[in-house]
Amino acid sequence: MKALLLVAHGSRRAASNEEVVALADRVADEVTGSFALVEAAFLELAEPSIEEGIGRCVAQGAREIAVVPYFLAAGTHVVKDIPAIIESARAAHPGVVITVGEHVGASSQMPALIRQCAVAP
Amino acid sequence: MKALLLVAHGSRRAASNEEVVALADRVADEVTGSFALVEAAFLELAEPSIEEGIGRCVAQGAREIAVVPYFLAAGTHVVKDIPAIIESARAAHPGVVITVGEHVGASSQMPALIRQCAVAP
Repeated sequence: MKALLLVAHGSRRAASNEEVVALADRVADEVTGSFALVEAAFLELAEPSIEEGIGRCVAQGAREIAVVPYFLAAGTHVVKDIPAIIESARAAHPGVVITVGEHVGASSQMPALIRQCAVAP
Repeated sequence: MKALLLVAHGSRRAASNEEVVALADRVADEVTGSFALVEAAFLELAEPSIEEGIGRCVAQGAREIAVVPYFLAAGTHVVKDIPAIIESARAAHPGVVITVGEHVGASSQMPALIRQCAVAP
């Protein structure tokens, strides 16, 4: 069973974290057929942590987890912090394949998304 | 003439700001036909500022400017800071129509973009 784990930075502002959880629900509707499960997790300042998010996926039966960093820039969090946490998670869950996708800012679809934001304000 | 102004937060990390400028170039390729001009600007920590970005658009002949906040969450920057700066810019450029689109995190296309990041890591 495949899961998608949306990893955001996390905020002191509860509404920002709730936006991420609501987005994960919209992603779940989008990926029906590809991923049986979508969870949200946070690098810091909010819960669940990335480790906890992976644990939730595994507990629900996931054997493949696609992590998507919900970040715009390829800063330290994307380049070092998240990969290091995922490396530990792989060691903790040896039977589970965990991949890390592009951060959303690097997506080839981002220019089209920005166009849509501009023409439908 | 219509311009699109991509407004990012700005970073102390030059590479992050350069990513935004490179993205604006990719957006320019995407919006040919709809927008004759695409510029990038920054709320803080980098240049050009939003005011300068709007000034650049106007100096190049823009009479309509669509501002797109390159932000994931509807925090204070999106809800208060950017609208306040745009309000001042409207007063400074009375002949120019300036609209503010959704921030990218609120786009209806975001779930599909996240799906793409997950399936093509």
